[in-house]
Amino acid sequence: MHLNDIPSKEFIPGLHGKIVHGERLSWAFWEVEKGAIVPEHQHHNEQMMHVVEGKLEFTLNGETQVYTNGAVVHIPCNSPHAGKALTPCRLMDVFSPVRNEYK
Amino acid sequence: MHLNDIPSKEFIPGLHGKIVHGERLSWAFWEVEKGAIVPEHQHHNEQMMHVVEGKLEFTLNGETQVYTNGAVVHIPCNSPHAGKALTPCRLMDVFSPVRNEYK
Repeated sequence: MHLNDIPSKEFIPGLHGKIVHGERLSWAFWEVEKGAIVPEHQHHNEQMMHVVEGKLEFTLNGETQVYTNGAVVHIPCNSPHAGKALTPCRLMDVFSPVRNEYK
Repeated sequence: MHLNDIPSKEFIPGLHGKIVHGERLSWAFWEVEKGAIVPEHQHHNEQMMHVVEGKLEFTLNGETQVYTNGAVVHIPCNSPHAGKALTPCRLMDVFSPVRNEYK
């Protein structure tokens, strides 16, 4: 697979992603517009987020931090989290098990 | 966590990595020297590999291809695979379950 061959989809206004699924893993590659907001949500899938580029305000279990290039955040199963792009951002998320809502 | 705060470790000559573990997921961030070789191996962990930058010769189940920036490769559980960096490479791997050998 090549990211250039995967069509980008706008999952939430301003949140554009390409998502690859395996048997136990999903990997999301996001391009986020400045100001885009991911409302608080939670899921049974474990998640890790990586900020490739940009400045992201991120709230996990009620605590808010700003993350920039190189950050890796562990989001345990069923932990409420939300985000806001303070600049245009490139992010990645990996999930296990597969994030079926994104299929 | 921030990648700048994680010490890099040379797992195989020329293969330098920083690895983050969750409960079900491991995420490896690799810097690979030109010419470095990962000998054929396999594991029960499902794996996805992403070429961030560089040119990687990669053999999966006996089939060899060259991957460049933007490639995403799915490596099913217990599938023999090997790699050779044709240029300096930046790669990422995600695994599920956790890759305990890398802890």
